[in-house]
Amino acid sequence: MTDFSQAIPVDKICYNEQGLVPAIVQDYLDGTVLMMAWMSPESLQKTLETGETWFWSRSRQEFWHKGATSGHLQFVKSVRYDCDSDALLITVEQQGDVACHTGERSCFHQVDSTKAHPPADTLSGVYSVISDRRDHPKDDSYTCKLMAGGDNKILKKIGEEASEVVMACKDDDKSAIASEVADLFYHTLVAMSYHNVDVKEVYKKLQERRG
Amino acid sequence: MTDFSQAIPVDKICYNEQGLVPAIVQDYLDGTVLMMAWMSPESLQKTLETGETWFWSRSRQEFWHKGATSGHLQFVKSVRYDCDSDALLITVEQQGDVACHTGERSCFHQVDSTKAHPPADTLSGVYSVISDRRDHPKDDSYTCKLMAGGDNKILKKIGEEASEVVMACKDDDKSAIASEVADLFYHTLVAMSYHNVDVKEVYKKLQERRG
Repeated sequence: MTDFSQAIPVDKICYNEQGLVPAIVQDYLDGTVLMMAWMSPESLQKTLETGETWFWSRSRQEFWHKGATSGHLQFVKSVRYDCDSDALLITVEQQGDVACHTGERSCFHQVDSTKAHPPADTLSGVYSVISDRRDHPKDDSYTCKLMAGGDNKILKKIGEEASEVVMACKDDDKSAIASEVADLFYHTLVAMSYHNVDVKEVYKKLQERRG
Repeated sequence: MTDFSQAIPVDKICYNEQGLVPAIVQDYLDGTVLMMAWMSPESLQKTLETGETWFWSRSRQEFWHKGATSGHLQFVKSVRYDCDSDALLITVEQQGDVACHTGERSCFHQVDSTKAHPPADTLSGVYSVISDRRDHPKDDSYTCKLMAGGDNKILKKIGEEASEVVMACKDDDKSAIASEVADLFYHTLVAMSYHNVDVKEVYKKLQERRG
């Protein structure tokens, strides 16, 4: 377990008139904002010491060890505070990939009175659209045409786009590099979705190597 | 401009005893949390109507049109609220890529009393490490060895890793697919960094096509 006990100067954080500071909780893999809750100095201290999130429940007026009942614990990856020292940003590995008490992944799933996928990074967003096309095909969709062609159609494009990235780099054409990499990433995500491999599985592999 | 005027039921949001609600502002491209500030019902309304962020400054007790002075406007891409209706999550395109008054990209740049890159999605994080190796070479770093070999060494790996993705897909080996895609993405990021093409340029291309 990473030791966060020295990470944040608990005494220097500015707490509000109720003695609390807002803590934004973010998924460490894809950047999704999972929830926002409140921490007292003691719950921040517990969070740093245990490496799991502890909040202060304003409705129940008691410590709230996130996931203690539901099993949806949050393992802390990093803790930051902002320029005014009056807000915290905590990245976590979310056990079960569910942070909201409603069973949704993120508490921020409400927009226009309807539910919607919480925003994450661009690649995850594209992967989500591709997988939606896979599950609900549309006639005029390029993604669906690729999927219908199976591995041979999809994988041929990966070879083609990889070659185009190589050529754009050899030309040192920055705009072409960005375009061709976008093409390569998109077609790779189609292959992944076709084989039911989530983009987060790739992120986990990359994070393991960084650590 | 997207019309957000009907997006959020302004009246249903729960404001605190000061009549304010916390608004988390997130970069729409890589998921970085840029800042957190407070909105009154009127500033939320202005935000929805104009498509730019308006907050309520608690210190100055006045509306604060983000970027009006600095030029660092925030163009709203989406607005969400959470399961308790007492927090907002707003994704934006950040003009100038600077949200903090200190000149940093994100207000959440403080950790362990030192400055640090704000967290974003995994791919951006890996790109940032690769670029740091490019700028500050280390003898035992694989990334540095690739960089030292230039295009021919880097690009050969892209062809190799693309072929390995193809083979893993043909085998329908999910774990191998995730590993090989991680390899392909990593080497592609090295090529991009070598040519000074930021990962966000690729995200922009992908977002343009989604829109």
